[in-house]
Amino acid sequence: MSAAVLGATGMVGQVFINLLSKHPWFEVKVVAASERSQGRKYSEVTNWKLQSPIPEKVADLEIVDITPEAVGDVDLVFSALPADIAGKIEEEFAKSGYIVLSNASSHRMDPDVPLLNPEVNGEHISLIDEQRRRRKWDGAIITNPNCSTAILTLALKPIYDEFGINRVIVSTMQALSGAGYPGVASLDIVDNVIPFIRNEEEKVQTETLKILGTLTNPANFKISASCHRVATLDGHMEAVFVEPIRKPNPEDVAKVMENFVGEPQKLKLPTAPTRPIVVRYEEDRPQVRLDRMEGNGMSVVVGRIRKDPALDGVKFIVLGHNTIRGAAGCSILNAEYLKAKGYL
Amino acid sequence: MSAAVLGATGMVGQVFINLLSKHPWFEVKVVAASERSQGRKYSEVTNWKLQSPIPEKVADLEIVDITPEAVGDVDLVFSALPADIAGKIEEEFAKSGYIVLSNASSHRMDPDVPLLNPEVNGEHISLIDEQRRRRKWDGAIITNPNCSTAILTLALKPIYDEFGINRVIVSTMQALSGAGYPGVASLDIVDNVIPFIRNEEEKVQTETLKILGTLTNPANFKISASCHRVATLDGHMEAVFVEPIRKPNPEDVAKVMENFVGEPQKLKLPTAPTRPIVVRYEEDRPQVRLDRMEGNGMSVVVGRIRKDPALDGVKFIVLGHNTIRGAAGCSILNAEYLKAKGYL
Amino acid sequence: MSAAVLGATGMVGQVFINLLSKHPWFEVKVVAASERSQGRKYSEVTNWKLQSPIPEKVADLEIVDITPEAVGDVDLVFSALPADIAGKIEEEFAKSGYIVLSNASSHRMDPDVPLLNPEVNGEHISLIDEQRRRRKWDGAIITNPNCSTAILTLALKPIYDEFGINRVIVSTMQALSGAGYPGVASLDIVDNVIPFIRNEEEKVQTETLKILGTLTNPANFKISASCHRVATLDGHMEAVFVEPIRKPNPEDVAKVMENFVGEPQKLKLPTAPTRPIVVRYEEDRPQVRLDRMEGNGMSVVVGRIRKDPALDGVKFIVLGHNTIRGAAGCSILNAEYLKAKGYL
Amino acid sequence: MSAAVLGATGMVGQVFINLLSKHPWFEVKVVAASERSQGRKYSEVTNWKLQSPIPEKVADLEIVDITPEAVGDVDLVFSALPADIAGKIEEEFAKSGYIVLSNASSHRMDPDVPLLNPEVNGEHISLIDEQRRRRKWDGAIITNPNCSTAILTLALKPIYDEFGINRVIVSTMQALSGAGYPGVASLDIVDNVIPFIRNEEEKVQTETLKILGTLTNPANFKISASCHRVATLDGHMEAVFVEPIRKPNPEDVAKVMENFVGEPQKLKLPTAPTRPIVVRYEEDRPQVRLDRMEGNGMSVVVGRIRKDPALDGVKFIVLGHNTIRGAAGCSILNAEYLKAKGYL
Repeated sequence: MSAAVLGATGMVGQVFINLLSKHPWFEVKVVAASERSQGRKYSEVTNWKLQSPIPEKVADLEIVDITPEAVGDVDLVFSALPADIAGKIEEEFAKSGYIVLSNASSHRMDPDVPLLNPEVNGEHISLIDEQRRRRKWDGAIITNPNCSTAILTLALKPIYDEFGINRVIVSTMQALSGAGYPGVASLDIVDNVIPFIRNEEEKVQTETLKILGTLTNPANFKISASCHRVATLDGHMEAVFVEPIRKPNPEDVAKVMENFVGEPQKLKLPTAPTRPIVVRYEEDRPQVRLDRMEGNGMSVVVGRIRKDPALDGVKFIVLGHNTIRGAAGCSILNAEYLKAKGYL
Repeated sequence: MSAAVLGATGMVGQVFINLLSKHPWFEVKVVAASERSQGRKYSEVTNWKLQSPIPEKVADLEIVDITPEAVGDVDLVFSALPADIAGKIEEEFAKSGYIVLSNASSHRMDPDVPLLNPEVNGEHISLIDEQRRRRKWDGAIITNPNCSTAILTLALKPIYDEFGINRVIVSTMQALSGAGYPGVASLDIVDNVIPFIRNEEEKVQTETLKILGTLTNPANFKISASCHRVATLDGHMEAVFVEPIRKPNPEDVAKVMENFVGEPQKLKLPTAPTRPIVVRYEEDRPQVRLDRMEGNGMSVVVGRIRKDPALDGVKFIVLGHNTIRGAAGCSILNAEYLKAKGYL
Repeated sequence: MSAAVLGATGMVGQVFINLLSKHPWFEVKVVAASERSQGRKYSEVTNWKLQSPIPEKVADLEIVDITPEAVGDVDLVFSALPADIAGKIEEEFAKSGYIVLSNASSHRMDPDVPLLNPEVNGEHISLIDEQRRRRKWDGAIITNPNCSTAILTLALKPIYDEFGINRVIVSTMQALSGAGYPGVASLDIVDNVIPFIRNEEEKVQTETLKILGTLTNPANFKISASCHRVATLDGHMEAVFVEPIRKPNPEDVAKVMENFVGEPQKLKLPTAPTRPIVVRYEEDRPQVRLDRMEGNGMSVVVGRIRKDPALDGVKFIVLGHNTIRGAAGCSILNAEYLKAKGYL
Repeated sequence: MSAAVLGATGMVGQVFINLLSKHPWFEVKVVAASERSQGRKYSEVTNWKLQSPIPEKVADLEIVDITPEAVGDVDLVFSALPADIAGKIEEEFAKSGYIVLSNASSHRMDPDVPLLNPEVNGEHISLIDEQRRRRKWDGAIITNPNCSTAILTLALKPIYDEFGINRVIVSTMQALSGAGYPGVASLDIVDNVIPFIRNEEEKVQTETLKILGTLTNPANFKISASCHRVATLDGHMEAVFVEPIRKPNPEDVAKVMENFVGEPQKLKLPTAPTRPIVVRYEEDRPQVRLDRMEGNGMSVVVGRIRKDPALDGVKFIVLGHNTIRGAAGCSILNAEYLKAKGYL
């Protein structure tokens, strides 16, 4: 199937290009980006920041305008557009009949738009029908969560299902790639931590409840986040404190996490990791650099599951790759899931 | 007054030497360290890691054995000994009549030993009388808290006094100097976070309650910590989530923090910062590198005080200098306080 | 004496403000910056990046336009303007009668403009007379060298004077602050080195010869530079390989460096460090973080002076603070020198 | 063919294990390490620091003593032993008939031991015959160069062959993994550069000449090195200044580098990269993090080839992976080369 990437030259756009270059089902045929770049080759325009080289097939593609007309005939569209312009543009594409897999925050909280982390809430896919009915379009917008939320909800899902949740507190240590390029100035982060990421706490607090909720109602628990930027390149680490409804031991939690699989695993989707949650038992794991590529960056790694004396629950560490599971990889898995479910 | 520093060559020992070199009351006359170094000059033996040079008066001091006999006649003793040997040695010194200001964890939780962060629990100083009665010695052991705890309790104190506390959750991002030298290997921390610091969570969870408690009983709230090492040189940052008994607004919390002073301020002790808690109102402060030296490293800096939706309370960021307020500086302030109270 | 700082809000501008706040002779009375900021308070507009707070007297100054009219009556002007606009503006100020101490590269290589590192080539100050004659203005432009060059020429001066120089090769490891703010993106420098700094090698290769030359001719030796950015905050380190005309031992070189003083030392100028060159004899010094503040950032620190088997000469390491000796500090020392010499 | 790795638990040992796990010809059957570990499983004993997990086949191997008796029947032996014990032990293995591919410095400069970087001096392999004759043993010791030297000599080889060399000056920026684990303390390298690596400059200066020399004589040019540690994880960058005998343009140098292949390429050895030297033409490449894995870490990447005004020659940047091309990878390529040449 042929795919277009909107916002193909930015950080997340590059990760899309890279992941899709090895994809068995989807091939990037169109790269769209802002006006300045149009008509020029992808490889000339892009300040490529990944270690693997620009995939050959994409290197010579000519950048086109971010409009349905310019993008033309493709089977699906991945959007890595910045939130300030994504909203309108994605709507235009959906109106023109395109399936848009969006990484932007613009439509995530729309009640008729799936906010999809497919192992967690695959059933939300049916919001597409509601969306088409309501908005009277043939296309669709499907969003994936904010990076920290994608990682968090995967770890929370088996706890939520098995033991119920009353309260969650999460404190993040987020990587630099999450801020895009150029993003965080080096003078701001060497020998430093910045305890602020704009809108991040709000996103974690609202998106988590939508994802773990039903088609019509958000999950009914309390959640609070504190988000911090540290000097790592890729990989968001989160310290999570959970007050469950029933009272599992840490061992019980480890067990439900290890046994957890979602529909993408059952459907053997190509981007689905064998184990969505990998549990480590060493006293000092997960570690960002050592564990972020687990499951090709699509697994989250949980460790240090232990009793929480303040919430009478459990606390643990979860790590995930922010630009793969937390962004482009999740979008691609969503596309695979749509195809498996007949929406593509 | 003349002082000895035990464990003078290590990281915390060096900070003691450095801070005391400019002290108006105390002068380092004796430096004691492990056997290998004895009889040699301090400057020859010490792998000095601070930016300011070794103070001249100390550079030529000869290292002596860590025994009361070798240390001889001094007015007080600062201990920067590692926990595995501090316990016994500090007892010997107290038995021999010395006042020992200890940075080690060995005796912190002894019921008759003050665990003193003097703005927070100055009144605990009277445990010295109990200690002398019970242990039948003329000297005394006075400890200061673990680094993370010293910083945390200072920020919690005005909340505890004004609004009461039911629950505290804290997630730390701790600096490399906290692990001593050589401490953390560079290969373990570049582009990485280590979500484990041995015994640290236990210390935060127990010491905090002792410090905020009465002479006889620990404070009666629940507390949970998750502790993480990040690639900063000095300065521990903590994300704190508080469930107070009464329900203050963030503005109320900011106000009681800003107005907070302790006895050291009233006594105008030389190492006491004018404001123990500095509140910042920018959206992205405190930052480790920019704010750790506030109050010459003796203030903690609080920022981002905001509502906490999970605990129906407040959350905030607190930053403090781990080897000054969190270690040597606190010990020295304790000594000043002892003197002001007639114990020295 | 009253001073204006042009380009006061940028990185070098901030260092000017900071250093001048404690200056015994000069006081900042006017801060000028680009249009967007005009009429607003310095403290509101400036993204202050230094650890010490904004000096109180400057915090409330209103930003003015970068024109002689707006700056008005001051005794001297420090320019921290970017090179692309500095050229014209500095000329306008000189034409209007101002003494301009410029940190910009625009006029450094003009034959009638002193490129002044005052311990090295104080006598070049007399170019001011030539400049005034030629350009028919009452003011003057005095430049200080590029950061790497300021550090290098100080270390080379005693060798050049005592032993002569045929050839110099220098390989730099430069700090992030040299690129201004936001400057180098964090994603470009964590776990990385960038072996390129625009125009830097050319500057080192031409400015060095002008500084070590006479009023009319550049020095007559060959020089080659390779410049690299590393993940340090402040402090440029340089590996220097020298082919001298006469053949000194490393000990001879150490001796002439240690004994070296310039006119600023003899005149006891307030910003002049006691020893312009500090020689270290440890096998692993200078180190960037430990030694960059030597002489309040105005000394360079040389170490590892050893035989060079390729040039039959010596090689050594030199370290200097790039925003102090290499920028604002050198400008201020130049101003002091001008005053001592009656030009101010 | 079956292989043993001596010193299998250290950093270089781990890289051996990792690279050999995917090798088409060699399989690790024996892992030997110091006494403390013997009899225990490799996976239990090793503080594994690589991102890819411990290869399954090796994980369960039992650690044996570092003696010929304990190692037993294998076809070849890779030595990742530290230099202080490697000398004697490797001799014992050679005496017992083993082919030892050594990464240690102990025997590198022995006149009858090949110091082999096979694209550069494959013909030195015949020293094995001389070695056997002289030392009267059936085995052999074959060494690979010090990491910086392996990278440097590859870049110099085509220049040396085509244009001749009079002089080389090299200034390195070396990665942390070169110091092993735990190696460099984090407190020594965050916001710092250490301008000293023990014995490194001597190794570069002597090994380079042996490698580029004939079987009996070192190359006849002058060379000087200055070696520095920076905060990168893997990948040594070197700024190289060359005075050639004939005077090529930068373009000529780029051309001979790009066209360069050695015998390993002609023999299509499995570990030989297609292009031993990759030339980049961007103004800011190579970069450590982006380019170190070129050719699976076996290529060196050269960039910024430009005229050198001090030596009337060329200067350029070369980057190579220090634990692959500079250590274990080179050893493995040497083994492949031995096999192709009938020595194995």
